[in-house]
Amino acid sequence: MSMESKKLLARGHLIDSGILTAILNLVVEEGGDYQIGHFNIGKTNDEESELEIEVTHRSEERLGRLLEKLARHGCYEKAAPEGVFKASPADRCAPDDFYSSTNHRSEVFSAGAWHPVQDQRMDAVIVAENGSYFCRKLRDLRNGDSVLCSGESVRVFPPARERHADVFSFMANSVSSERNVDTVVESIATDLKTVRASGGKIVWVAGPVVVHTGGSQALCRLIQEGFVQGILSGNALAVHDIERVLFGTSLGVDLESGRPTHDGHRNHMRAINAVNRHGSIHAAVAAGKIRQGIMYELCAANIPYCLAGSIRDDGPLPDTITDMIEAQEAYRKIIENASVVIMLSTMLHSIGTGNMLPSWVKTICVDINPAVVTKLGDRGSGQAIGIVSDVGLFLRALADKVGP
Amino acid sequence: MSMESKKLLARGHLIDSGILTAILNLVVEEGGDYQIGHFNIGKTNDEESELEIEVTHRSEERLGRLLEKLARHGCYEKAAPEGVFKASPADRCAPDDFYSSTNHRSEVFSAGAWHPVQDQRMDAVIVAENGSYFCRKLRDLRNGDSVLCSGESVRVFPPARERHADVFSFMANSVSSERNVDTVVESIATDLKTVRASGGKIVWVAGPVVVHTGGSQALCRLIQEGFVQGILSGNALAVHDIERVLFGTSLGVDLESGRPTHDGHRNHMRAINAVNRHGSIHAAVAAGKIRQGIMYELCAANIPYCLAGSIRDDGPLPDTITDMIEAQEAYRKIIENASVVIMLSTMLHSIGTGNMLPSWVKTICVDINPAVVTKLGDRGSGQAIGIVSDVGLFLRALADKVGP
Amino acid sequence: MSMESKKLLARGHLIDSGILTAILNLVVEEGGDYQIGHFNIGKTNDEESELEIEVTHRSEERLGRLLEKLARHGCYEKAAPEGVFKASPADRCAPDDFYSSTNHRSEVFSAGAWHPVQDQRMDAVIVAENGSYFCRKLRDLRNGDSVLCSGESVRVFPPARERHADVFSFMANSVSSERNVDTVVESIATDLKTVRASGGKIVWVAGPVVVHTGGSQALCRLIQEGFVQGILSGNALAVHDIERVLFGTSLGVDLESGRPTHDGHRNHMRAINAVNRHGSIHAAVAAGKIRQGIMYELCAANIPYCLAGSIRDDGPLPDTITDMIEAQEAYRKIIENASVVIMLSTMLHSIGTGNMLPSWVKTICVDINPAVVTKLGDRGSGQAIGIVSDVGLFLRALADKVGP
Amino acid sequence: MSMESKKLLARGHLIDSGILTAILNLVVEEGGDYQIGHFNIGKTNDEESELEIEVTHRSEERLGRLLEKLARHGCYEKAAPEGVFKASPADRCAPDDFYSSTNHRSEVFSAGAWHPVQDQRMDAVIVAENGSYFCRKLRDLRNGDSVLCSGESVRVFPPARERHADVFSFMANSVSSERNVDTVVESIATDLKTVRASGGKIVWVAGPVVVHTGGSQALCRLIQEGFVQGILSGNALAVHDIERVLFGTSLGVDLESGRPTHDGHRNHMRAINAVNRHGSIHAAVAAGKIRQGIMYELCAANIPYCLAGSIRDDGPLPDTITDMIEAQEAYRKIIENASVVIMLSTMLHSIGTGNMLPSWVKTICVDINPAVVTKLGDRGSGQAIGIVSDVGLFLRALADKVGP
Repeated sequence: MSMESKKLLARGHLIDSGILTAILNLVVEEGGDYQIGHFNIGKTNDEESELEIEVTHRSEERLGRLLEKLARHGCYEKAAPEGVFKASPADRCAPDDFYSSTNHRSEVFSAGAWHPVQDQRMDAVIVAENGSYFCRKLRDLRNGDSVLCSGESVRVFPPARERHADVFSFMANSVSSERNVDTVVESIATDLKTVRASGGKIVWVAGPVVVHTGGSQALCRLIQEGFVQGILSGNALAVHDIERVLFGTSLGVDLESGRPTHDGHRNHMRAINAVNRHGSIHAAVAAGKIRQGIMYELCAANIPYCLAGSIRDDGPLPDTITDMIEAQEAYRKIIENASVVIMLSTMLHSIGTGNMLPSWVKTICVDINPAVVTKLGDRGSGQAIGIVSDVGLFLRALADKVGP
Repeated sequence: MSMESKKLLARGHLIDSGILTAILNLVVEEGGDYQIGHFNIGKTNDEESELEIEVTHRSEERLGRLLEKLARHGCYEKAAPEGVFKASPADRCAPDDFYSSTNHRSEVFSAGAWHPVQDQRMDAVIVAENGSYFCRKLRDLRNGDSVLCSGESVRVFPPARERHADVFSFMANSVSSERNVDTVVESIATDLKTVRASGGKIVWVAGPVVVHTGGSQALCRLIQEGFVQGILSGNALAVHDIERVLFGTSLGVDLESGRPTHDGHRNHMRAINAVNRHGSIHAAVAAGKIRQGIMYELCAANIPYCLAGSIRDDGPLPDTITDMIEAQEAYRKIIENASVVIMLSTMLHSIGTGNMLPSWVKTICVDINPAVVTKLGDRGSGQAIGIVSDVGLFLRALADKVGP
Repeated sequence: MSMESKKLLARGHLIDSGILTAILNLVVEEGGDYQIGHFNIGKTNDEESELEIEVTHRSEERLGRLLEKLARHGCYEKAAPEGVFKASPADRCAPDDFYSSTNHRSEVFSAGAWHPVQDQRMDAVIVAENGSYFCRKLRDLRNGDSVLCSGESVRVFPPARERHADVFSFMANSVSSERNVDTVVESIATDLKTVRASGGKIVWVAGPVVVHTGGSQALCRLIQEGFVQGILSGNALAVHDIERVLFGTSLGVDLESGRPTHDGHRNHMRAINAVNRHGSIHAAVAAGKIRQGIMYELCAANIPYCLAGSIRDDGPLPDTITDMIEAQEAYRKIIENASVVIMLSTMLHSIGTGNMLPSWVKTICVDINPAVVTKLGDRGSGQAIGIVSDVGLFLRALADKVGP
Repeated sequence: MSMESKKLLARGHLIDSGILTAILNLVVEEGGDYQIGHFNIGKTNDEESELEIEVTHRSEERLGRLLEKLARHGCYEKAAPEGVFKASPADRCAPDDFYSSTNHRSEVFSAGAWHPVQDQRMDAVIVAENGSYFCRKLRDLRNGDSVLCSGESVRVFPPARERHADVFSFMANSVSSERNVDTVVESIATDLKTVRASGGKIVWVAGPVVVHTGGSQALCRLIQEGFVQGILSGNALAVHDIERVLFGTSLGVDLESGRPTHDGHRNHMRAINAVNRHGSIHAAVAAGKIRQGIMYELCAANIPYCLAGSIRDDGPLPDTITDMIEAQEAYRKIIENASVVIMLSTMLHSIGTGNMLPSWVKTICVDINPAVVTKLGDRGSGQAIGIVSDVGLFLRALADKVGP
């Protein structure tokens, strides 16, 4: 059997981030073989390591597929081949052998040099345009666009594990309901204050559970204190918030007494009707109909938000974007350049947000269901913290810690 | 303190369905008082009971609100007042005191007689039009529509608990992961065969977990055998199904060997790209690109389906309806007159479907997460079965039981 | 087919507690038939109802079994038959047709009169001794004991639904993670203060999650303030508490910083070793080795506790009762006459406790897993509250609310 | 500040098992520093790697603690110091600075050479006796025993990640409810047949959920076919199994029809009473009272089992070992030299078993709750498979696959 082989390089904090482990396991699992050329291990904690490895497989095709997978872990060919670009055969269509992007920082080898890729996100194609390189969603491709079709010409840089003293460096990827939430809240509070002080952007993804569990006022305080630069959500958060403000209930439960009122659903519809009368939430706030609450604070401080529609919406409110293409675009604008994204009890909107985020953006996910926290934390990077806890209690503890 | 009171009637299987219990508890919880006028209990299992009750509260306003809540349990005024209808003040807007509908069969008292309400669904308003009465969503109201504003003029008929020997009569509302799924599957199989034999309509709400857990072929067999008259889902089910058919993977896992392939996400995008090339799933099936699988069977048998978009969609496929208003309308058409709705591992689409369903449609919900099953089973009726189990194993067991 | 029938009576708050619904459904589900003799419904909220019902079945044996089941819901024969007592054939053995008790208040008809049953608990037999009647566990039966073998001679009194303004009256049996825990905590705090003021007994069942989630200090404050009259637990709670006090860690996690220490398990064993050196927790406290924490507070205030062993114990501590018969007996003594039992994140010990409790004792169960809360709340009575929340945050909120 | 340092060695499949990553991260997290002396990476998949590393910390005490933690990952001192042994100060007590063992294969450096440790298990001390070295539980220590007190003299060998084609090599440590259980079952069936063919020992840890979910007959077939060499469980499994055999119910649910029988709990007690009459399960089988079911098959084939008591037991059966020290000892004997341990829906008994198992024994854990599967799978080794599924359906699928 003839064997095909190729020499690859990888550089970075290969060991402590587990990248070297991932590379060698991948070769073996895929049925290939390897020979280490050299491996210069970083002598100390601060130095990077460098690996040269020769990878072998039993056909050119299989080797090619293996190389493409290895590229996702930061391996690139020692003598990187020129990127191959092909024209899109039609709108919304890529050539069959298109390269599908990761969420890690990437570079393309073209015209004899490495070029950064812009608008990095998962599951996009890479398009060359006027000498620059961009991630583009399949649906945004136009007939004739120049699409990258050679994974060997890409090198990616998975984020190194954090070494600083922040909360991400010791909690990343761990999920447990058997943990002291207070110490975690303390650390997050410190981080958020640092982000705010440095002019960073904190974006929240929030579900209506924030309202049911009594977290509204805490979130309002966080908005007032300057810890919220955007909110991504759906129709329900706004309806429940406005229902609470206008009628004191949420999901049919009186939020003061905790007793069911037996007509919560009617209040739900009345809240929608009230906004419909004014034409929009902003208009209802301007008219003095809505005088407090999450949506009020957002309007008052002119903080951007997006309510994405869904198949389960009642109403929806006139502010809800019912077309998902538009909604994804609106989300994307709000999270652009976010420093931290905090996801509160909404798997749907959190996954939608996660799909757009490059791997180096820090995320914090809070949910009472450990399976949700695990799923959202799996971002192929050490930048995700998962907390299994009661969202209302969490928000109140956090607002107390960052408060004046 | 002056007290207000009113005499109400209720009729039906008040005891075994727990309706009488609900009525009396509601009066007490709301701070009212009652005096039983007479109560003719059904002497045997088949006879209905009849209740006359006088309800008292300390103000007309509070009494009115209480009556409206009681109406949802089937209590109506002995001398029912004429329905009060008011004109909508604007498109999408109801008068402030609009009546908000339940999902139970309802009648309106108008022009001296009781009239049935059509298009029954939750959270709608009731509109009078040419002497008929319809449920209408807030967003479909037009300026000047004649909207019911007096809950006292409505009587509702919560479904009685089933007494027949079908699976719904003994399993309704119970949820447990500690149960023998096989005996449940047996009963459901019997029911589905009865529905099919009588020309009934079985609609499925299915998430992509059907594919991941290896349930695709079983669902295909159920389609072939005539047990599927419609499928409600989202973009992901179709993408995962087509990815499986074209590449043998789902979510990056080889479905034969169970091994991760490390490029599942690329196959995901390639599946979307392949459909994009043909312009639609139907076209890809017609062109012979897709030759098996769930979407293939649906196209081949011309069974209606709807893929509703969501904020987390990749692609989406050209067949996915990205506007939620349109998608809700498409869902509604498919479930019209359904006899049974079976919900498989998708809370999002199942809640969307449940919102549209009148209370007398039977639902079966299967999910491995007990919280989802509990939430979906809470339909205010004895027509919902919840099963905590592995969806793939469940579907295979069911297909074996109903098979030829 | 010859039919057998019998006239039964039931009295009490039959409707609002759902008992009447349960009775009629039971007859139908068991294949019997009924004829209502008369039903005097309580005219107002305070009056009891009275039901006379004739129940029919197709053989004496089946009717007998049905009557026994109906007895559990409070139905007794109009002309109650004399209780039949038979001698135990051997130690630990009942006659084959023994009556198995419920957890509801019960009376036995014997010598022409109704007699109360003492030591009421589930799954026991009823023994006559010197004209009194007792629940006794199978394993405590002795050869020749006089055991009740006629369920028709028993009448039980399921507790009526609470009508007072306490937290049990509006929250009973509801479980949700989507709820504002703060309002619930407020209500519980009020109830606990009432119980303490009236000299009632509050017993806690606590798992080690109390320590991991940072609830130790809150529980210590509750002990100091007089809200703890007993703790039922296992080996792990004490080991984790003492590990925390001596080394500042729990499960290998530093409780101050939240960081893993990588030798938590060693500290776990060192804590056990330290207690072993002194011979018991009380001795280690007396010697000044343990100077704070949950076990310290319990010893200092001389509050009874029981650590029941289990198959997964490390050590165990010398204080742990390793024999389960002894441990159950110790538990029973501590919960005797408890007014409220609060169960914190331990399904094992909570079920053990629940088995011993009569149905009229109020229970509050807090766990982050909704399935556990549902299981523990299912006590056939309206006396159980379930809260899905983070135990550490819950305890701190509660301690703040009841605090001085 | 004076710095202390030490040179360490480690050898093995350091990279693909993630051990090297763990070592370097540990040094940094503990506040130490490192300098790589040399690192000979295995050039190919089969070669071991060798690391020489110098570790530095700011005090001798901190360095000592760091070394002890590093030892758990297989690092040992280049010039290993003689093991220090001290005498136990009392029964059940170790010297304060005792070494606490891992579940990995270990060696002790003593008398100038490395010696294997026998009876390897977690959380034990190492005792020298007649020139051999044993793991011993704290409670088994006797005054004067010679206990190892120097972690630097131990080297441990974490198991390498499997490279063979068995199910453990590709599934280890992954947990998901969104997976095709059928392909996993297929792989497990193949492995079990291999184990049986080679005379290996398969031990099952089984909870009563096996009976409730309809898995009894499948487990019986597995016993008959020779796939069960021992069962570890508690009182409940046996009671539910015998209740099913004698009365056809389990937890009050008819196992044929799935309908509640309303006296399940009575049957539960009758099953216990029946065994009590014969004195033991074996006697009841011998007397022909129990003629089928799990316990019958175990008795018939003379397969060892242990029913460990717990605080929540009803009865318990006379066969249940109510003392936990005895029960742990009985468990230990049954799992001795097990090749595979399969844990079915019982966290309590599975943790108890896991505590005793050395890290190289393969474990398979099946539970419908993902949190349980995650917890049990966390064994610090690549030898654990977790499956989130319905246990009854899983067992039937497995019995079908291995069947004749």
